[in-house]
Parts: sequence; structure tokens; C-alpha cells
Amino acid sequence: MNTPSAVRWHDGKLELLDQRKLPAVVTYLEIKDLRGGWEAINTMAVRGAPAIGIAAGYTLVVAMAGEDPNLEAEPQQFLARLDQHAHYLASARPTAVNLSWAVRRICERAKRSPTLRAIRDEAQIIHEEDRAICRAIGDYGRRLIEPGNGVLTHCNAGALAASELGTATAPMYLNHQQGMSFRVYVDETRPLLQGARLTAWELSEAGMDVTLICDNMAATLMAEGKIDLVIVGTDRVTRNGDVVNKIGTLNLAILCAHYDIPFYVACPSSSYDPETEFGHEVVIEERDPSEVLGENAARVAVRNPAFDVTPANLVTAIITDRGIAQPPLAAALERLLMENST
Amino acid sequence: MNTPSAVRWHDGKLELLDQRKLPAVVTYLEIKDLRGGWEAINTMAVRGAPAIGIAAGYTLVVAMAGEDPNLEAEPQQFLARLDQHAHYLASARPTAVNLSWAVRRICERAKRSPTLRAIRDEAQIIHEEDRAICRAIGDYGRRLIEPGNGVLTHCNAGALAASELGTATAPMYLNHQQGMSFRVYVDETRPLLQGARLTAWELSEAGMDVTLICDNMAATLMAEGKIDLVIVGTDRVTRNGDVVNKIGTLNLAILCAHYDIPFYVACPSSSYDPETEFGHEVVIEERDPSEVLGENAARVAVRNPAFDVTPANLVTAIITDRGIAQPPLAAALERLLMENST
Repeated sequence: MNTPSAVRWHDGKLELLDQRKLPAVVTYLEIKDLRGGWEAINTMAVRGAPAIGIAAGYTLVVAMAGEDPNLEAEPQQFLARLDQHAHYLASARPTAVNLSWAVRRICERAKRSPTLRAIRDEAQIIHEEDRAICRAIGDYGRRLIEPGNGVLTHCNAGALAASELGTATAPMYLNHQQGMSFRVYVDETRPLLQGARLTAWELSEAGMDVTLICDNMAATLMAEGKIDLVIVGTDRVTRNGDVVNKIGTLNLAILCAHYDIPFYVACPSSSYDPETEFGHEVVIEERDPSEVLGENAARVAVRNPAFDVTPANLVTAIITDRGIAQPPLAAALERLLMENST
Repeated sequence: MNTPSAVRWHDGKLELLDQRKLPAVVTYLEIKDLRGGWEAINTMAVRGAPAIGIAAGYTLVVAMAGEDPNLEAEPQQFLARLDQHAHYLASARPTAVNLSWAVRRICERAKRSPTLRAIRDEAQIIHEEDRAICRAIGDYGRRLIEPGNGVLTHCNAGALAASELGTATAPMYLNHQQGMSFRVYVDETRPLLQGARLTAWELSEAGMDVTLICDNMAATLMAEGKIDLVIVGTDRVTRNGDVVNKIGTLNLAILCAHYDIPFYVACPSSSYDPETEFGHEVVIEERDPSEVLGENAARVAVRNPAFDVTPANLVTAIITDRGIAQPPLAAALERLLMENST
């Protein structure tokens, strides 16, 4: 499968695809030390929750590999140094849940086994688990797409945001791999254009039939009968099935309800948040006005929420790595993601 | 009222606000000859259906004023020369209905009275009529906005697209002039950003409380209760009440239906097209992919329809210069705009 790798690890060498330069320039940054990893995460050379976690795990391995080899002989010092690095790395994007989660996993593994080899294994396990999660989402979700369909997706929940197959894109990649013919519509995803820059690029690189539209064109394509289903990713699904995802997701869900088009959400089990009951409890990050105000905009006030909340009743089903949750979503998610949780 | 003038005419001098440079630079182009007017219309220094018509009328006056003053003594030659200029000018934007309409009006006036003074009078009448139409739309529409409301508009159906008060903006300008306090939300209007560049600029120049959003944020603002009504312009309303307008209008109408928010369309009587029964009969211009594919987009296929069709059943009411058409729209429009037509 020809999917781009956001994170490459080979013989102890860590390389990150520099997503700031996509799609004009495809170049990998070699991460040689802690500072390099911190900067790559901080400046969004690597982005997407799972990809940040994977990159963070490997960055700690690189950082510890750069220490005095004799450090392993002194477990307390090894752990102290790792903890110092972990603390610094987690500051690269303080609000990224997967960053602190991955850093914590590496540190906890080291507590049990304070060796470079152990943390390298853990970083590789994090990476491998994500591949398996994406593949499982793809396996469950692939039957939702039929030959000749038009599939619309939003933002980037693809290989660039995770590993190998991505989440929302995994059903597309697997069907494409099997030779199924279908068309993917990608909306730009203003203001940061993750659809236009990243998703359109990675899917067309994989050889898919990709058509780019502006966010405000989705209704017209639906009215024309061009869209058979929508699949988006998610940053968080709350207990009742509300979906927190990139701004513009709610818009698509309402259009789908209007045109009676299925609206699917791809959700790795790690993005399910049963501690939060409803989507409206989630504080939505309001980002800098400069993202919206380009050189060409008038100098006025701006609203720039990064995410929106799609109520559970607008969601046709949630594709998880443990099966597809159908309404009523709260009960289905609990059954799939809590009772069998490992 | 501090509204920008897209077209200025004073003592035989024609000046057009160069809208290509807005909002960064506010500069007027003096149109000294036919070629200058042609280029201003062709390159969209002036845009918006009514404003193009007004500019075209004055351009023909300027062009004929540049001819040998003795030409008036020979009516046949005067008419032949005007016809030649008119034919050329109409080629500047062949699909702009108001351009050919204004050019035809000037020529017909000249047939009755082949003098420079007559065509100058006609150009001024076209301009004056548009002012009156915008004012009438404002007078009818102003009661739809209440103090403290949040009003969302799309694209530019403002002073820059017409004269003085604009169409969709006329109710806002009149209420603002009376000291009413309300907030206007303007969406960017991808791909050409007429909302961000033009509407946000002209309304904030007039001192209104303006907030810019991306097109995909409207649903979130509606969910937050920030939007009390939507007012948009239109390029054409068909006999049944379907509304052809800038891409993204249909999206807003569907969101309004979902959130039970009134969706109003400001329609000068000249934009009512009783010859066409349904919106789907209108051929929608598909524009160049380069408008969507910025430097940052992947090289993929693009859909770029310039307009969309909002079905009559999603329209709360149509604000015309002869009154407000309420559903059933077909009958209301016919009563207002045909029976009393002049």
C-alpha cells in the first residue's frame, strides 16, 4: 500500500515527514536529538493525534540513545534523565492528549525496565498498535463503501495523522487496494486547509480518484447526488456519542441529515472519552484570528473555533477498531469499547 | 451614510473603486475612455451585477464624450459609433446580464434622442433607479432585524455590488443609521473571499460590529445561538421562488432550516426571472480550478461551481423593492413583481 509515512523508524534513525511543506515539497526531517523532536512537534512538522504520540515515543528513544552508554548501569540516573527529557518534550504541544499519553507510556515502561532497549520496544509497540487500530477500522469500515460511490471526507484523518492507513481514510485505502473504483471528495477545511494540503495529497499519491471542493460546496454536491456517504475522523467521542472534530464537521452532519446521506465517524478506541457525558462539556479551543485573516481580509473581529460538536443524533454510526457502533450510540460504544477493554 | 461607492460620477468624470485591491488599498480608477471601462469590468475592478450595469452606462457616456463634438449633428453616425462602442463593451463580461441590459438601455435611449446629453441622462437614471431599489429593499427589510440580533450574510451583496445601500446589506445599513445595535457575521465566501475582502470591509467602514468566520463555522455559531437571521443577495430568483446565488448559500439555507432560523433573500425586481420556472433549469457556471487550488493545494481534480440553487421551500421570505414575498413564494412574487410591474 502506497501511503505516506508521517513517522519513519529504521535502525534507530527517526525521520518525520515535514508536513509544513506539503504538498509542494516532500521531505523528511531526521530527528537527531530531543530538541529536534520538540521543534518538529511544536511547529507541526508532525501533526495528527496518533502521529504526534508515535513521534514522541521515538524522540525519547533518540534522546536517551544520545546519553552516555554507561547510564544504563545506574537505573535511578537513567530514569531521572528520561523523566527530564519527557517533561520537556511534553511541553511541545501541551494540549495534545496523545503527546503526554505516549511520553507517560515510555516512562512507565522504563520504570519496569530502565534500559534503552525497553523504551525502544515500547516506542515500537505504540507505533505497531496504531497500525493495527487503523487496519481494524479499515476492516470494519470498508463494507460501508460500495463500488462507484462518492465518499466525502473532511480535514485530515489519514495516514499523515496516524500510521499507514489513517482512521477515516482506512476504509478507502483498503477498498482501493482491492481494486474497488470509487471517488473521494475532499473539502479544503478552512482555515488551515488540511483537506486541500494533506488529505488530497496523500489520497492522490496512493492513486485514488480525488476531487477537491471548498467547504461551502458540499451541499451542492449532495444535491447533485454525487455524495453517497461521509466519513470523518474525530478528536474525541463522549459517552453519549457526541463527536468533537475539526470545525466544519457539524456542518456536514446537518447536510447529511437533510439529504438522507449516511454520516460515519472513524474513532480509534483511544479517542473514546466515557468520562465526559456530552460534547458540550468539552472546551473548544479558539485559535488565533490570524489563521482566518489572510492578507486579503478586512481588519475585523474573528471567530476561529478549532473544533465543533456534532450531536450523537446526527451520526449514522461510529467505526471503531473493535466494531461498528450503531445507534443508540451510548450503549453501543460502551459495549464495544468498555466491556471488552483490555 | 458612510457607504463606499463602487461607481462615482461627477461633472462628467467616471471613477470606479478598484475592488481588486480591497481591502488593503482603497483607490479609485478614473475611466477616461472605452478601453478603460472595458478593462475595469473585464478584470473585475468593478463587480456585482448592478454596479457593472451602472459602470457600463457611464463608460458609454465617457466614450461618446471623447468623440468629435460634431458627431451629434449627424444622428446616424452618432448611433453607429455608439453601437460599435456598446458592442465592444458588452464583450467585457459576456455572461453578466446587467452589462448587456445597461448597454441596451443606453442605445435605446439614443435611438429616441441621439445626443450625448440624452445618454448621460439615461446613465444617471440607471444609477438613480438602483439607489432607489436598494433603499426600498432596506425599507421593507429593516423590520426583520431586531436590536441585539446576530445577522449572518454571505458573499457581497453590499454597497460595493450595487449603489449606496446594497441589497442584502440595505436593511443593515438603515438600522445602523438609526442607531440600532446588532452584530453582523460575515463568512469568508471561498474561493474568492468576497465576504472577507469586501463585505467585512464595507460594513466595518460604516462602523458596524462585524465578525468574520470561515464558511464551515456557520453551524457552530447557529448552535451557540449567535445567529438570529440570515440575509443573502441573489443573482436570480426563478418563477417558483428558487434562489440562484453564490456557492455556499444553499449550505446556509439548510443550516437555517435545521436550527429554525429565518433565511431571507434580498432580491431587486430586476433579478426576478419569471421566464424560468425552476432553479435547476439555470446553468451554473463552473469556474477555473486555479481559484480553489492555491499554492498549497495538492494537484487534484477540482469542482468549482460559482453558484448554487436554494429550493424555494428553504426560503423564509424574499425581500424585494416592492414588498416582502412570503410563501407560497411563486404566487407572492408574481403578485408583487408582475401585476404591478411598470
